[in-house]
Amino acid sequence: MEAIINDGYYMQLAIDMAKKASGQTDINPVVGCVIVKEGRIIGLGAHLKRGEGHAEVHALRMAGEEAEGSTAYVTLEPCSHHGKTPPCCERLIDAKVARVVVACTDPNPMVAGRGISRLREAGIEVDVGLLGDVSLQMNEKFNKFITTRQPYITLKTAMTLDGKIAAKTGDSRYVSGPAAREHVHTLRHQHMGIMVGVQTALADDPELTTRLSVPALHPTRIIVDSKLRLSPEARLFHNREVPIIILTVEGADPNKRAALEAQGAKVITCGNGEQVDLTLAMKQLGEEEIGSILLEGGGKLNGAMLELGLVDKIMLFIAPKLIGGDNAPGAFSFGGFGKMADAIQLTGVTMEQVGDDFCLTGYPAGR
Amino acid sequence: MEAIINDGYYMQLAIDMAKKASGQTDINPVVGCVIVKEGRIIGLGAHLKRGEGHAEVHALRMAGEEAEGSTAYVTLEPCSHHGKTPPCCERLIDAKVARVVVACTDPNPMVAGRGISRLREAGIEVDVGLLGDVSLQMNEKFNKFITTRQPYITLKTAMTLDGKIAAKTGDSRYVSGPAAREHVHTLRHQHMGIMVGVQTALADDPELTTRLSVPALHPTRIIVDSKLRLSPEARLFHNREVPIIILTVEGADPNKRAALEAQGAKVITCGNGEQVDLTLAMKQLGEEEIGSILLEGGGKLNGAMLELGLVDKIMLFIAPKLIGGDNAPGAFSFGGFGKMADAIQLTGVTMEQVGDDFCLTGYPAGR
Repeated sequence: MEAIINDGYYMQLAIDMAKKASGQTDINPVVGCVIVKEGRIIGLGAHLKRGEGHAEVHALRMAGEEAEGSTAYVTLEPCSHHGKTPPCCERLIDAKVARVVVACTDPNPMVAGRGISRLREAGIEVDVGLLGDVSLQMNEKFNKFITTRQPYITLKTAMTLDGKIAAKTGDSRYVSGPAAREHVHTLRHQHMGIMVGVQTALADDPELTTRLSVPALHPTRIIVDSKLRLSPEARLFHNREVPIIILTVEGADPNKRAALEAQGAKVITCGNGEQVDLTLAMKQLGEEEIGSILLEGGGKLNGAMLELGLVDKIMLFIAPKLIGGDNAPGAFSFGGFGKMADAIQLTGVTMEQVGDDFCLTGYPAGR
Repeated sequence: MEAIINDGYYMQLAIDMAKKASGQTDINPVVGCVIVKEGRIIGLGAHLKRGEGHAEVHALRMAGEEAEGSTAYVTLEPCSHHGKTPPCCERLIDAKVARVVVACTDPNPMVAGRGISRLREAGIEVDVGLLGDVSLQMNEKFNKFITTRQPYITLKTAMTLDGKIAAKTGDSRYVSGPAAREHVHTLRHQHMGIMVGVQTALADDPELTTRLSVPALHPTRIIVDSKLRLSPEARLFHNREVPIIILTVEGADPNKRAALEAQGAKVITCGNGEQVDLTLAMKQLGEEEIGSILLEGGGKLNGAMLELGLVDKIMLFIAPKLIGGDNAPGAFSFGGFGKMADAIQLTGVTMEQVGDDFCLTGYPAGR
């Protein structure tokens, strides 16, 4: 059946538009807006690019003078502060919108309910919470960054049923099938950064760009490389338009550093230990306005990030095959816990079939 | 899983926007447009009202100068003729769009492939057919009207498992549950007319307006009333803003006609027989630019329309209960066929649960 026409009918469309803009709004949330008057849609909008029009602005422009007396459905509380654009609250008030339905309040401490108060002060009827969970989850990456200034980390890996990401020979082409791989590239488009350990960069010499059947956005490539073993000749450097960040330590060889910088990489020092201080690195990447990172392992980096409690979400593509080999590399390599009760527990777990593979999604507890 | 980013990802969003505008574009089709460039959405639009901007115009306006070199996803072939607005083909050409992906060609004989030819002549790459079936079905009502100038007829009824639309006492509140009834009102929003027999109008004294939890559009009320038995006091006339058309015959009482006209009804003469000539009525309603009609029975009108081959689609809400009573009114009352092989066969049948009821949808064969 087609959907029943009600408040949810219009809010769902606002969400559909916002979701499809995921990945293109930088550290901004994705937001959709539908303006309705006397039984008909008169304006549609989504936030499409940081620094450009918010969803409400696009939709109000489409509605024109008709906006007076209308209802605006917005997936996120309209902003009340002067940022890169004037506050949307004032736009809605000026346009004499009669009612605003908001899916969820803005976790941004600069808004956080003020937008709603401002609209109500101006005599606009405001309803909050419709499809709020969906809207909140759609911006889970933004929600973390705006409140902590640290990137949201999605750990993605593809493994066999016996937990291996490659054969004992190192061969890994391919663990999962074409559908799963297309999903992974879609995830790259939707994250601002992609992070791998130098071991993966050396073994596979990957480009770490987004390859889909249509043009898509490339995440900033981030390599964890304490000893600066990465070669300035690596294929990573073939595409100089997509930024490269290398995380290293104070003691790293200055000549190697200069050689990588000469290739366009930004080298960031994360502590003075033997290994990159990953907790510190997250803060530094946050300062670089990397709002979200797709962590594509290998096993040691995955394990270290998990042990440090730095992973927000896990997406595990499971191929229904067994490769064997006790020393074949696993998806998660870390010291481990002595008691089963201490295991890292996932919550909010879902499992879906993707082509011939499965994808388990979950959130490490306490994140 | 979220959808993979590909051409279908953007076309689906264009379809989502168009679908939600169903019912608000008069005899025009619903159309959505998404403009994409270098991996990001830069424009969104839908056709929202007859005589106002087409989907492409709204989306191009949002995209602004960025549209140069972009890909436009449009659910329907862009128009090439000067109608109430300038042709969208020229707008796309002027904006220097590089590629246009079209879901389906326009059945409108004034367009019918010319839009695509025009774009190609201008050097734009055009791909046709992506999600074409979905887009075509979304405009099934428009497609009939634009090619035949006759309204698309959706027969909707709600019946018990034993095929009754009321008890033997005439009591019919309610056959189906609240979810089914909300769907019926959504269908009213999505059709330009609603048609009942005078028997139903006399028995139930209905308003035949659209009642949902949000404001919605009301269809023109159409009453089949050969003897003009409808009272000028009927509740139908309480809302004078929504048009009323009464279909009658030449021999109808002129005084009764004048009384109904005085109440704002438009009375149309359909033949000189005992009964309204329904085949002729469809032509006349087409001339009134009623592009689609929700036929809400009762049984005799449903039966007559079916027998005459005037029904395009049937939506049968089936309540899982038995009311009994051999003479209780049925959903379809007509002479019938002597051989089972001659029965009116439905094609493209689907069955869905709607609250506690079921909805069977199908198309009478040969329509």
